[in-house]
Amino acid sequence: MTRTDPLETALERGFAQIIGPRTPPRLVAAMHHALFPGGARFRPRLLLAVAGAAGAPSADAEAAAVAVELVHCASLVHDDLPCFDNASIRRGRMSVHAKFGESLAVLVGDGLIVAAFDVLARATVACPTLASAIGLLAAAVGANGGLVAGQAWEDEPSADVYRYHQAKTGALFEAATSIGAVVAGAEVTEWRAVGTALGEAYQLADDLGDLVGTPTDLGKPVGQDLIHARPNAAIELGLERAFARLESAVTRAADLVPACPGDEGFRDWLLSSCARVFPTRAQVRQDPLRDRAPLSA
Amino acid sequence: MTRTDPLETALERGFAQIIGPRTPPRLVAAMHHALFPGGARFRPRLLLAVAGAAGAPSADAEAAAVAVELVHCASLVHDDLPCFDNASIRRGRMSVHAKFGESLAVLVGDGLIVAAFDVLARATVACPTLASAIGLLAAAVGANGGLVAGQAWEDEPSADVYRYHQAKTGALFEAATSIGAVVAGAEVTEWRAVGTALGEAYQLADDLGDLVGTPTDLGKPVGQDLIHARPNAAIELGLERAFARLESAVTRAADLVPACPGDEGFRDWLLSSCARVFPTRAQVRQDPLRDRAPLSA
Repeated sequence: MTRTDPLETALERGFAQIIGPRTPPRLVAAMHHALFPGGARFRPRLLLAVAGAAGAPSADAEAAAVAVELVHCASLVHDDLPCFDNASIRRGRMSVHAKFGESLAVLVGDGLIVAAFDVLARATVACPTLASAIGLLAAAVGANGGLVAGQAWEDEPSADVYRYHQAKTGALFEAATSIGAVVAGAEVTEWRAVGTALGEAYQLADDLGDLVGTPTDLGKPVGQDLIHARPNAAIELGLERAFARLESAVTRAADLVPACPGDEGFRDWLLSSCARVFPTRAQVRQDPLRDRAPLSA
Repeated sequence: MTRTDPLETALERGFAQIIGPRTPPRLVAAMHHALFPGGARFRPRLLLAVAGAAGAPSADAEAAAVAVELVHCASLVHDDLPCFDNASIRRGRMSVHAKFGESLAVLVGDGLIVAAFDVLARATVACPTLASAIGLLAAAVGANGGLVAGQAWEDEPSADVYRYHQAKTGALFEAATSIGAVVAGAEVTEWRAVGTALGEAYQLADDLGDLVGTPTDLGKPVGQDLIHARPNAAIELGLERAFARLESAVTRAADLVPACPGDEGFRDWLLSSCARVFPTRAQVRQDPLRDRAPLSA
């Protein structure tokens, strides 16, 4: 990932919009730390790929891609806080609260959420079709089935695993494909279904990564779901079934891509991105669950 | 404040929009606790009063007033967290983290920020002039001179008191008057200046309240600024000068009201609201600073 990557350039430009002379210096540093360098940037790249395939000018989609990455990074900063995962490592470096303290980490998350809407609102002036992206993003992050709801299910005495994962992971993937479609003036429902399938794939990949990945691969501690007793599909299903389900979700996502000017290219991008980012059977040296009966069949 | 108060009805309606069947039940309860019953609701009432005076239909202004109150409540929930003020009492009841735990309090704040933009985005469909309110609200809450910046100045080794108060308090008052003007199609700059003066008055009132108020009057602990060594104009100036400056800021706000259909009524509302909400000399039984030299003249 180099500085000439257009998404990274757009993120730098977005960052420059949301801080300024009235931003306290430590807050600038902490917000920058939360955003750069990023991870795979899967969600914003997905949004750009959908918009491109469906025929939108890339300039119109960029602000929306930045907004999606801003709320994603906000959710990571808050999820890492001591009152949630208490994770001191993220993307191979200190997490925001570990480096800058808990109070600034809360404010970084708040500031990034606000920034996402700020960036969208500014871009709406030049690209009025983005106006409806504001509501789509709010729904994907909010208390009714968005990221906030997903994280809050961890605070309930019991939670439906599907609903938990759909809110915590699926909602933002659906927003990425839906907003990509909106920017291109394409039909939203079909593209949303692609996001739903990809969100399921991503969650399975995340669950598998927590079991079979290494801290070096993932840039964060592994084995956390067993420690925190969080729902994990790979623990529930066993590795083999979880890998099979991951592959089937990726195939389903590719099959759901609607006919559009760039559908072939999008499918290629999707399959190669998933192959690059998701864990594979080849990574498994020994089954970490071998002494443990699957929780359910 | 009864249920027939139109603002409370609008807030109940806004709350019903932002939660739903996919909101975890404890999150619903915690978000409701953060919003109801409210305090003076000064900021949204100010927005409604400006919009009304400048000639906007009240239905158009309501969503914006709700959004302003949502971000204000979000900031209170996060400010009360253990990593900031560690306040267990708010509006005479347990604060959100004291009642529901720290993790849910973080999520309530996040959810209320998102909700503010959600409510505005929905209302923009019926009232397109609200579109620019989204950017004004983001600026008032964000990292460059908004609430987030204001709180983050507490994390810096040194901070200019005026800049700190302007971001922490002034920005949202300016947003309230500016957005009220936008909804009415009125000139924003003049109304923003009314918000600036009122923000200064409110901060002085808050500083005085922390010194001369009682927990019963204010529904929260007092004497916190001395405990946390936070900048407090009443400590710096002494009570008498702080009261004089408060009165002069209120007068200035009233003088700055631009000529408009309802300017007289707005001025009356402003002066009576300030008289009702702000601390008065009559409350002072003994000067809490009498054994302490003023820090500056």
